[in-house]
Amino acid sequence: MSEHNGGAAGARASAVGTAPAYTQFLTDLFGVIAYGELSAFERMSSDARFSPTLRDRATLGRLAVREYTHFERVSAHLEGMGADPEQAMAPFQQSVDAFHDRTRPGDWHESLMKFYVTDAISDDFYAALGSRLDDESAALISSMLGSSEAPGEVLFVRLQESLKDDPRLASRLALWGRRLVGEALTQAQRIVIERAFPKGLAGEVSREDYDVQIRELFSQLTRNHSRRMSLLGLTA
Amino acid sequence: MSEHNGGAAGARASAVGTAPAYTQFLTDLFGVIAYGELSAFERMSSDARFSPTLRDRATLGRLAVREYTHFERVSAHLEGMGADPEQAMAPFQQSVDAFHDRTRPGDWHESLMKFYVTDAISDDFYAALGSRLDDESAALISSMLGSSEAPGEVLFVRLQESLKDDPRLASRLALWGRRLVGEALTQAQRIVIERAFPKGLAGEVSREDYDVQIRELFSQLTRNHSRRMSLLGLTA
Repeated sequence: MSEHNGGAAGARASAVGTAPAYTQFLTDLFGVIAYGELSAFERMSSDARFSPTLRDRATLGRLAVREYTHFERVSAHLEGMGADPEQAMAPFQQSVDAFHDRTRPGDWHESLMKFYVTDAISDDFYAALGSRLDDESAALISSMLGSSEAPGEVLFVRLQESLKDDPRLASRLALWGRRLVGEALTQAQRIVIERAFPKGLAGEVSREDYDVQIRELFSQLTRNHSRRMSLLGLTA
Repeated sequence: MSEHNGGAAGARASAVGTAPAYTQFLTDLFGVIAYGELSAFERMSSDARFSPTLRDRATLGRLAVREYTHFERVSAHLEGMGADPEQAMAPFQQSVDAFHDRTRPGDWHESLMKFYVTDAISDDFYAALGSRLDDESAALISSMLGSSEAPGEVLFVRLQESLKDDPRLASRLALWGRRLVGEALTQAQRIVIERAFPKGLAGEVSREDYDVQIRELFSQLTRNHSRRMSLLGLTA
Protein backbone atom coordinates (compact mmCIF):
# COMPACT_ATOMS: atom_id res chain seq x y z
CA MET A 1 0.00 0.00 0.00
CA SER A 2 1.44 3.43 -0.93
CA GLU A 3 2.33 6.17 1.52
CA HIS A 4 -0.59 8.16 0.22
CA ASN A 5 -3.16 5.49 0.97
CA GLY A 6 -1.73 4.86 4.41
CA GLY A 7 -2.15 8.54 5.18
CA ALA A 8 -5.72 8.55 3.96
CA ALA A 9 -6.53 5.52 6.08
CA GLY A 10 -5.09 7.27 9.13
CA ALA A 11 -7.16 10.38 8.53
CA ARG A 12 -10.24 8.25 8.01
CA ALA A 13 -9.86 6.32 11.23
CA SER A 14 -10.28 9.52 13.23
CA ALA A 15 -12.89 11.16 11.02
CA VAL A 16 -15.30 8.40 10.03
CA GLY A 17 -16.62 7.38 13.44
CA THR A 18 -19.78 9.44 13.16
CA ALA A 19 -20.31 9.79 9.41
CA PRO A 20 -23.70 8.33 8.44
CA ALA A 21 -22.24 6.58 5.39
CA TYR A 22 -19.65 4.90 7.59
CA THR A 23 -22.27 3.87 10.15
CA GLN A 24 -24.32 2.39 7.33
CA PHE A 25 -21.26 0.57 6.08
CA LEU A 26 -20.62 -0.88 9.55
CA THR A 27 -24.25 -1.96 9.85
CA ASP A 28 -23.94 -3.73 6.50
CA LEU A 29 -20.61 -5.28 7.43
CA PHE A 30 -21.79 -6.61 10.79
CA GLY A 31 -25.10 -7.60 9.19
CA VAL A 32 -23.37 -9.79 6.62
CA ILE A 33 -20.98 -11.21 9.23
CA ALA A 34 -23.88 -12.01 11.58
CA TYR A 35 -25.89 -13.69 8.85
CA GLY A 36 -22.82 -15.55 7.65
CA GLU A 37 -22.17 -16.90 11.15
CA LEU A 38 -25.81 -17.87 11.72
CA SER A 39 -25.93 -19.72 8.39
CA ALA A 40 -22.58 -21.39 8.94
CA PHE A 41 -23.83 -22.55 12.33
CA GLU A 42 -26.95 -24.11 10.81
CA ARG A 43 -25.22 -25.68 7.83
CA MET A 44 -22.31 -27.00 9.85
CA SER A 45 -24.48 -28.56 12.53
CA SER A 46 -26.74 -30.13 9.89
CA ASP A 47 -23.72 -31.55 8.11
CA ALA A 48 -22.32 -32.84 11.40
CA ARG A 49 -24.92 -35.57 11.33
CA PHE A 50 -23.16 -37.23 8.41
CA SER A 51 -19.84 -37.52 10.21
CA PRO A 52 -18.29 -40.99 10.12
CA THR A 53 -17.80 -41.15 13.88
CA LEU A 54 -19.48 -39.73 16.96
CA ARG A 55 -16.23 -37.97 17.80
CA ASP A 56 -16.31 -36.18 14.45
CA ARG A 57 -19.92 -35.21 15.03
CA ALA A 58 -19.03 -33.75 18.39
CA THR A 59 -16.08 -31.86 16.90
CA LEU A 60 -18.08 -30.36 14.04
CA GLY A 61 -20.83 -29.53 16.53
CA ARG A 62 -18.37 -27.61 18.68
CA LEU A 63 -17.16 -25.63 15.68
CA ALA A 64 -20.77 -24.88 14.79
CA VAL A 65 -21.50 -23.65 18.31
CA ARG A 66 -18.50 -21.34 18.01
CA GLU A 67 -20.12 -19.77 14.93
CA TYR A 68 -23.33 -19.26 16.88
CA THR A 69 -21.40 -17.54 19.68
CA HIS A 70 -19.92 -15.17 17.10
CA PHE A 71 -23.37 -14.54 15.70
CA GLU A 72 -24.57 -13.55 19.16
CA ARG A 73 -21.63 -11.23 19.77
CA VAL A 74 -22.03 -9.48 16.43
CA SER A 75 -25.79 -9.15 17.00
CA ALA A 76 -25.16 -7.60 20.41
CA HIS A 77 -22.68 -5.21 18.81
CA LEU A 78 -25.26 -4.19 16.20
CA GLU A 79 -27.79 -3.55 18.95
CA GLY A 80 -25.18 -1.49 20.78
CA MET A 81 -24.84 0.63 17.64
CA GLY A 82 -28.60 1.18 17.71
CA ALA A 83 -29.16 -1.12 14.71
CA ASP A 84 -31.69 -3.95 14.52
CA PRO A 85 -29.77 -7.19 13.80
CA GLU A 86 -32.64 -8.66 11.78
CA GLN A 87 -32.80 -5.62 9.53
CA ALA A 88 -29.04 -5.51 9.22
CA MET A 89 -28.89 -9.16 8.15
CA ALA A 90 -31.86 -9.13 5.77
CA PRO A 91 -30.14 -7.61 2.70
CA PHE A 92 -27.56 -10.43 2.69
CA GLN A 93 -29.85 -13.35 3.31
CA GLN A 94 -30.50 -14.17 -0.33
CA SER A 95 -26.89 -14.08 -1.53
CA VAL A 96 -25.50 -16.03 1.45
CA ASP A 97 -28.25 -18.66 1.03
CA ALA A 98 -27.49 -18.85 -2.67
CA PHE A 99 -23.81 -19.35 -1.86
CA HIS A 100 -24.68 -22.30 0.40
CA ASP A 101 -27.06 -23.76 -2.16
CA ARG A 102 -24.38 -23.60 -4.84
CA THR A 103 -21.83 -25.22 -2.55
CA ARG A 104 -23.87 -27.99 -1.00
CA PRO A 105 -21.39 -30.69 0.06
CA GLY A 106 -21.92 -34.10 -1.48
CA ASP A 107 -20.47 -35.93 1.50
CA TRP A 108 -18.65 -35.55 4.76
CA HIS A 109 -15.25 -34.76 3.22
CA GLU A 110 -16.68 -32.08 0.98
CA SER A 111 -18.37 -30.65 4.01
CA LEU A 112 -15.11 -30.50 5.99
CA MET A 113 -13.40 -28.94 3.00
CA LYS A 114 -16.13 -26.37 2.61
CA PHE A 115 -15.76 -25.12 6.15
CA TYR A 116 -11.98 -25.28 5.97
CA VAL A 117 -11.88 -23.18 2.81
CA THR A 118 -14.68 -20.71 3.46
CA ASP A 119 -13.95 -20.08 7.11
CA ALA A 120 -10.37 -19.20 6.29
CA ILE A 121 -11.31 -16.93 3.40
CA SER A 122 -13.93 -15.09 5.37
CA ASP A 123 -11.54 -14.72 8.31
CA ASP A 124 -8.89 -13.25 5.98
CA PHE A 125 -11.46 -11.04 4.36
CA TYR A 126 -12.86 -9.67 7.61
CA ALA A 127 -9.35 -9.23 9.01
CA ALA A 128 -8.46 -7.10 5.97
CA LEU A 129 -11.61 -5.00 6.36
CA GLY A 130 -11.13 -4.86 10.13
CA SER A 131 -7.77 -3.15 9.74
CA ARG A 132 -9.54 -0.27 7.97
CA LEU A 133 -12.16 0.28 10.67
CA ASP A 134 -12.43 2.32 13.86
CA ASP A 135 -10.79 0.80 16.94
CA GLU A 136 -13.93 -0.65 18.53
CA SER A 137 -15.11 -2.42 15.38
CA ALA A 138 -11.60 -3.62 14.64
CA ALA A 139 -11.31 -5.02 18.18
CA LEU A 140 -14.55 -7.00 17.83
CA ILE A 141 -13.42 -8.54 14.56
CA SER A 142 -9.93 -9.41 15.75
CA SER A 143 -11.23 -10.93 18.99
CA MET A 144 -13.42 -13.30 16.97
CA LEU A 145 -10.59 -14.24 14.65
CA GLY A 146 -8.02 -14.71 17.37
CA SER A 147 -10.02 -17.35 19.18
CA SER A 148 -8.18 -19.83 21.38
CA GLU A 149 -9.43 -22.73 19.30
CA ALA A 150 -8.79 -22.16 15.62
CA PRO A 151 -11.32 -24.24 13.68
CA GLY A 152 -8.98 -24.19 10.68
CA GLU A 153 -6.47 -26.23 12.64
CA VAL A 154 -9.04 -28.85 13.68
CA LEU A 155 -10.39 -29.17 10.14
CA PHE A 156 -6.89 -29.23 8.67
CA VAL A 157 -5.80 -32.12 10.87
CA ARG A 158 -8.96 -34.09 10.09
CA LEU A 159 -8.65 -33.48 6.34
CA GLN A 160 -4.98 -34.40 6.34
CA GLU A 161 -5.86 -37.68 8.05
CA SER A 162 -8.46 -38.51 5.39
CA LEU A 163 -6.28 -37.47 2.48
CA LYS A 164 -3.34 -39.57 3.54
CA ASP A 165 -2.86 -42.33 0.96
CA ASP A 166 -6.09 -41.51 -0.87
CA PRO A 167 -5.13 -39.89 -4.21
CA ARG A 168 -8.67 -40.27 -5.51
CA LEU A 169 -10.11 -38.22 -2.64
CA ALA A 170 -7.26 -35.73 -3.11
CA SER A 171 -8.11 -35.05 -6.72
CA ARG A 172 -11.81 -34.78 -5.92
CA LEU A 173 -11.19 -32.35 -3.06
CA ALA A 174 -8.75 -30.30 -5.12
CA LEU A 175 -11.50 -29.71 -7.69
CA TRP A 176 -14.03 -29.03 -4.99
CA GLY A 177 -11.64 -26.52 -3.36
CA ARG A 178 -11.38 -24.65 -6.64
CA ARG A 179 -15.14 -24.41 -6.91
CA LEU A 180 -15.41 -23.24 -3.32
CA VAL A 181 -12.80 -20.52 -3.64
CA GLY A 182 -14.45 -19.25 -6.81
CA GLU A 183 -17.83 -18.99 -5.15
CA ALA A 184 -16.44 -17.49 -1.95
CA LEU A 185 -14.43 -14.79 -3.72
CA THR A 186 -17.38 -13.90 -5.95
CA GLN A 187 -19.44 -13.50 -2.79
CA ALA A 188 -16.81 -11.35 -1.07
CA GLN A 189 -16.31 -9.23 -4.17
CA ARG A 190 -20.01 -8.51 -4.41
CA ILE A 191 -19.95 -7.20 -0.85
CA VAL A 192 -17.03 -4.83 -1.28
CA ILE A 193 -18.05 -3.62 -4.71
CA GLU A 194 -21.75 -3.17 -4.10
CA ARG A 195 -21.59 -2.13 -0.48
CA ALA A 196 -18.25 -0.90 0.67
CA PHE A 197 -17.26 1.75 -1.82
CA PRO A 198 -20.53 3.63 -2.10
CA LYS A 199 -21.00 3.53 1.65
CA GLY A 200 -17.84 4.96 3.05
CA LEU A 201 -15.23 2.26 3.52
CA ALA A 202 -13.16 3.94 0.84
CA GLY A 203 -13.14 7.16 2.85
CA GLU A 204 -10.96 9.72 1.11
CA VAL A 205 -9.37 7.26 -1.28
CA SER A 206 -10.15 7.86 -4.95
CA ARG A 207 -12.12 5.26 -6.85
CA GLU A 208 -8.99 4.27 -8.76
CA ASP A 209 -6.81 3.82 -5.69
CA TYR A 210 -9.65 1.94 -4.03
CA ASP A 211 -9.89 -0.45 -6.99
CA VAL A 212 -6.14 -1.07 -6.79
CA GLN A 213 -6.44 -1.88 -3.09
CA ILE A 214 -9.35 -4.23 -3.70
CA ARG A 215 -7.44 -6.07 -6.44
CA GLU A 216 -4.51 -6.40 -4.05
CA LEU A 217 -6.82 -7.73 -1.33
CA PHE A 218 -8.25 -10.39 -3.63
CA SER A 219 -4.80 -11.46 -4.82
CA GLN A 220 -3.85 -11.84 -1.18
CA LEU A 221 -6.96 -13.93 -0.44
CA THR A 222 -6.19 -16.15 -3.42
CA ARG A 223 -2.53 -16.59 -2.43
CA ASN A 224 -3.51 -17.52 1.14
CA HIS A 225 -6.00 -20.04 -0.18
CA SER A 226 -3.40 -21.62 -2.48
CA ARG A 227 -1.00 -21.89 0.41
CA ARG A 228 -3.62 -23.65 2.56
CA MET A 229 -4.38 -26.09 -0.25
CA SER A 230 -0.67 -26.83 -0.72
CA LEU A 231 -0.36 -27.60 2.99
CA LEU A 232 -2.94 -30.31 2.40
CA GLY A 233 -0.97 -31.53 -0.61
CA LEU A 234 -3.66 -30.29 -3.01
CA THR A 235 -3.27 -28.17 -6.13
CA ALA A 236 -5.26 -24.96 -5.79
CA MET B 1 -44.79 -44.75 46.21
CA SER B 2 -45.27 -47.08 49.21
CA GLU B 3 -43.27 -46.95 52.43
CA HIS B 4 -41.60 -50.16 51.42
CA ASN B 5 -40.30 -48.81 48.13
CA GLY B 6 -39.14 -45.60 49.74
CA GLY B 7 -37.08 -47.65 52.17
CA ALA B 8 -35.56 -49.72 49.40
CA ALA B 9 -34.65 -46.58 47.49
CA GLY B 10 -32.94 -45.15 50.57
CA ALA B 11 -30.89 -48.29 51.08
CA ARG B 12 -29.96 -48.31 47.42
CA ALA B 13 -28.75 -44.74 47.37
CA SER B 14 -26.03 -45.59 49.85
CA ALA B 15 -25.21 -49.07 48.58
CA VAL B 16 -25.22 -48.83 44.80
CA GLY B 17 -22.42 -46.28 44.31
CA THR B 18 -19.81 -48.87 43.48
CA ALA B 19 -21.81 -51.85 42.21
CA PRO B 20 -20.73 -52.75 38.65
CA ALA B 21 -24.34 -53.17 37.49
CA TYR B 22 -25.17 -49.70 38.76
CA THR B 23 -22.09 -48.20 37.09
CA GLN B 24 -23.12 -49.87 33.85
CA PHE B 25 -26.61 -48.47 34.26
CA LEU B 26 -25.22 -44.96 34.77
CA THR B 27 -23.00 -45.31 31.72
CA ASP B 28 -26.04 -46.33 29.69
CA LEU B 29 -28.17 -43.55 31.13
CA PHE B 30 -25.60 -40.81 30.48
CA GLY B 31 -24.82 -42.40 27.11
CA VAL B 32 -28.42 -42.13 25.97
CA ILE B 33 -28.76 -38.63 27.41
CA ALA B 34 -25.55 -37.51 25.66
CA TYR B 35 -26.61 -38.96 22.33
CA GLY B 36 -30.09 -37.52 22.74
CA GLU B 37 -28.66 -34.05 23.34
CA LEU B 38 -26.20 -34.29 20.44
CA SER B 39 -28.98 -35.40 18.07
CA ALA B 40 -31.40 -32.78 19.34
CA PHE B 41 -28.71 -30.16 18.76
CA GLU B 42 -28.20 -31.27 15.16
CA ARG B 43 -31.89 -31.68 14.33
CA MET B 44 -32.91 -28.44 15.98
CA SER B 45 -30.25 -26.38 14.31
CA SER B 46 -31.04 -27.94 10.93
CA ASP B 47 -34.72 -27.17 11.41
CA ALA B 48 -33.88 -23.62 12.49
CA ARG B 49 -33.14 -22.82 8.89
CA PHE B 50 -36.83 -23.11 8.01
CA SER B 51 -37.92 -20.55 10.57
CA PRO B 52 -40.21 -17.85 9.22
CA THR B 53 -38.10 -14.99 10.60
CA LEU B 54 -34.45 -14.40 11.40
CA ARG B 55 -35.44 -13.84 15.03
CA ASP B 56 -36.99 -17.32 15.15
CA ARG B 57 -33.87 -18.79 13.59
CA ALA B 58 -31.72 -17.14 16.21
CA THR B 59 -34.02 -18.37 19.00
CA LEU B 60 -34.07 -21.96 17.81
CA GLY B 61 -30.32 -21.76 17.30
CA ARG B 62 -29.86 -20.68 20.91
CA LEU B 63 -31.96 -23.60 22.14
CA ALA B 64 -29.90 -25.94 19.98
CA VAL B 65 -26.66 -24.58 21.42
CA ARG B 66 -28.05 -25.23 24.89
CA GLU B 67 -28.47 -28.91 23.92
CA TYR B 68 -24.88 -29.03 22.75
CA THR B 69 -23.71 -27.56 26.05
CA HIS B 70 -25.58 -30.34 27.86
CA PHE B 71 -24.02 -32.90 25.58
CA GLU B 72 -20.57 -31.60 26.50
CA ARG B 73 -21.32 -31.67 30.22
CA VAL B 74 -22.67 -35.21 30.11
CA SER B 75 -19.69 -36.34 28.02
CA ALA B 76 -17.31 -34.80 30.54
CA HIS B 77 -19.20 -36.57 33.32
CA LEU B 78 -18.86 -39.90 31.51
CA GLU B 79 -15.14 -39.32 31.11
CA GLY B 80 -14.95 -38.50 34.80
CA MET B 81 -16.52 -41.90 35.49
CA GLY B 82 -13.80 -43.51 33.40
CA ALA B 83 -16.20 -44.25 30.52
CA ASP B 84 -15.65 -43.42 26.87
CA PRO B 85 -18.51 -41.15 25.73
CA GLU B 86 -18.47 -42.56 22.19
CA GLN B 87 -18.79 -46.11 23.45
CA ALA B 88 -21.47 -45.10 25.93
CA MET B 89 -23.53 -43.41 23.21
CA ALA B 90 -23.13 -46.07 20.53
CA PRO B 91 -25.79 -48.57 21.76
CA PHE B 92 -28.48 -45.85 21.55
CA GLN B 93 -27.57 -44.33 18.23
CA GLN B 94 -29.84 -46.49 16.12
CA SER B 95 -32.98 -46.11 18.20
CA VAL B 96 -32.60 -42.35 18.71
CA ASP B 97 -31.96 -41.88 14.98
CA ALA B 98 -35.00 -44.02 14.22
CA PHE B 99 -37.07 -41.86 16.56
CA HIS B 100 -36.01 -38.73 14.68
CA ASP B 101 -36.65 -40.35 11.32
CA ARG B 102 -40.15 -41.35 12.38
CA THR B 103 -40.86 -37.85 13.67
CA ARG B 104 -39.42 -35.73 10.90
CA PRO B 105 -41.28 -32.40 11.05
CA GLY B 106 -43.12 -31.41 7.89
CA ASP B 107 -42.75 -27.70 8.56
CA TRP B 108 -41.65 -25.09 11.05
CA HIS B 109 -44.66 -25.49 13.35
CA GLU B 110 -44.27 -29.24 13.53
CA SER B 111 -40.64 -28.69 14.32
CA LEU B 112 -41.43 -26.31 17.20
CA MET B 113 -44.02 -28.76 18.48
CA LYS B 114 -41.59 -31.63 18.29
CA PHE B 115 -39.05 -29.90 20.49
CA TYR B 116 -41.72 -28.61 22.82
CA VAL B 117 -43.18 -32.10 23.35
CA THR B 118 -40.05 -34.22 23.35
CA ASP B 119 -37.86 -31.89 25.41
CA ALA B 120 -40.47 -31.77 28.13
CA ILE B 121 -41.01 -35.53 28.15
CA SER B 122 -37.33 -36.30 28.27
CA ASP B 123 -36.82 -33.71 31.02
CA ASP B 124 -39.63 -35.32 33.05
CA PHE B 125 -38.24 -38.75 32.36
CA TYR B 126 -34.69 -37.90 33.36
CA ALA B 127 -35.91 -36.04 36.44
CA ALA B 128 -37.79 -39.17 37.52
CA LEU B 129 -34.74 -41.36 36.98
CA GLY B 130 -32.49 -38.72 38.56
CA SER B 131 -34.40 -38.92 41.83
CA ARG B 132 -33.40 -42.60 42.06
CA LEU B 133 -29.67 -42.05 41.53
CA ASP B 134 -26.68 -41.29 43.72
CA ASP B 135 -26.24 -37.63 44.72
CA GLU B 136 -23.60 -36.70 42.16
CA SER B 137 -25.53 -38.11 39.19
CA ALA B 138 -28.76 -36.60 40.48
CA ALA B 139 -27.07 -33.20 40.80
CA LEU B 140 -25.85 -33.26 37.20
CA ILE B 141 -29.31 -34.10 35.90
CA SER B 142 -31.12 -31.54 38.00
CA SER B 143 -28.62 -28.79 37.09
CA MET B 144 -29.33 -29.39 33.41
CA LEU B 145 -33.07 -29.38 33.94
CA GLY B 146 -33.11 -26.32 36.16
CA SER B 147 -31.50 -24.10 33.56
CA SER B 148 -32.13 -20.37 33.79
CA GLU B 149 -33.66 -20.35 30.33
CA ALA B 150 -36.33 -23.00 30.02
CA PRO B 151 -36.66 -23.85 26.33
CA GLY B 152 -40.19 -25.09 27.00
CA GLU B 153 -41.24 -21.58 27.89
CA VAL B 154 -39.76 -20.05 24.72
CA LEU B 155 -41.33 -22.72 22.51
CA PHE B 156 -44.66 -22.48 24.34
CA VAL B 157 -44.91 -18.72 23.78
CA ARG B 158 -44.01 -19.07 20.11
CA LEU B 159 -46.50 -21.91 19.56
CA GLN B 160 -49.26 -20.04 21.38
CA GLU B 161 -48.66 -17.07 19.11
CA SER B 162 -48.99 -19.23 15.98
CA LEU B 163 -52.03 -21.15 17.24
CA LYS B 164 -53.98 -18.03 18.09
CA ASP B 165 -56.96 -17.82 15.73
CA ASP B 166 -55.77 -20.73 13.60
CA PRO B 167 -58.06 -23.71 14.29
CA ARG B 168 -56.72 -25.58 11.30
CA LEU B 169 -53.16 -25.45 12.61
CA ALA B 170 -54.49 -26.37 16.07
CA SER B 171 -56.09 -29.58 14.84
CA ARG B 172 -53.03 -30.49 12.81
CA LEU B 173 -50.69 -29.90 15.75
CA ALA B 174 -52.98 -31.79 18.14
CA LEU B 175 -52.67 -34.87 15.91
CA TRP B 176 -48.95 -34.34 15.54
CA GLY B 177 -48.58 -34.03 19.32
CA ARG B 178 -50.29 -37.38 19.77
CA ARG B 179 -47.90 -39.03 17.34
CA LEU B 180 -44.93 -37.44 19.06
CA VAL B 181 -45.92 -38.50 22.55
CA GLY B 182 -46.51 -42.05 21.34
CA GLU B 183 -43.08 -42.27 19.77
CA ALA B 184 -41.35 -40.58 22.71
CA LEU B 185 -42.93 -42.84 25.32
CA THR B 186 -42.15 -45.94 23.30
CA GLN B 187 -38.56 -44.77 23.17
CA ALA B 188 -38.41 -44.08 26.92
CA GLN B 189 -40.07 -47.39 27.73
CA ARG B 190 -37.54 -49.29 25.70
CA ILE B 191 -34.75 -47.69 27.71
CA VAL B 192 -36.15 -48.52 31.13
CA ILE B 193 -37.33 -51.98 30.24
CA GLU B 194 -34.32 -53.14 28.26
CA ARG B 195 -31.64 -51.31 30.16
CA ALA B 196 -32.65 -50.16 33.58
CA PHE B 197 -34.07 -53.24 35.26
CA PRO B 198 -31.44 -55.77 34.33
CA LYS B 199 -28.67 -53.32 35.07
CA GLY B 200 -29.31 -52.17 38.57
CA LEU B 201 -31.69 -49.25 38.63
CA ALA B 202 -34.26 -51.45 40.29
CA GLY B 203 -31.85 -52.10 43.16
CA GLU B 204 -33.55 -54.22 45.78
CA VAL B 205 -37.04 -53.72 44.43
CA SER B 206 -38.76 -56.86 43.16
CA ARG B 207 -39.62 -57.13 39.49
CA GLU B 208 -43.30 -56.73 40.31
CA ASP B 209 -42.84 -53.60 42.39
CA TYR B 210 -40.55 -52.23 39.76
CA ASP B 211 -43.17 -52.78 37.06
CA VAL B 212 -45.73 -50.95 39.18
CA GLN B 213 -43.35 -48.01 39.59
CA ILE B 214 -42.64 -47.92 35.87
CA ARG B 215 -46.36 -47.92 35.05
CA GLU B 216 -46.83 -45.06 37.51
CA LEU B 217 -43.95 -43.16 35.90
CA PHE B 218 -45.44 -43.49 32.44
CA SER B 219 -48.90 -42.42 33.64
CA GLN B 220 -47.23 -39.37 35.13
CA LEU B 221 -45.39 -38.58 31.88
CA THR B 222 -48.66 -38.90 29.96
CA ARG B 223 -50.56 -36.67 32.40
CA ASN B 224 -47.86 -33.99 32.23
CA HIS B 225 -47.96 -34.13 28.45
CA SER B 226 -51.76 -33.76 28.39
CA ARG B 227 -51.52 -30.77 30.70
CA ARG B 228 -48.95 -29.11 28.42
CA MET B 229 -51.15 -29.70 25.38
CA SER B 230 -54.17 -28.25 27.21
CA LEU B 231 -52.19 -25.14 28.05
CA LEU B 232 -51.81 -24.67 24.31
CA GLY B 233 -55.54 -25.23 23.84
CA LEU B 234 -54.92 -28.59 22.18
CA THR B 235 -56.53 -31.94 22.92
CA ALA B 236 -53.89 -34.47 23.90
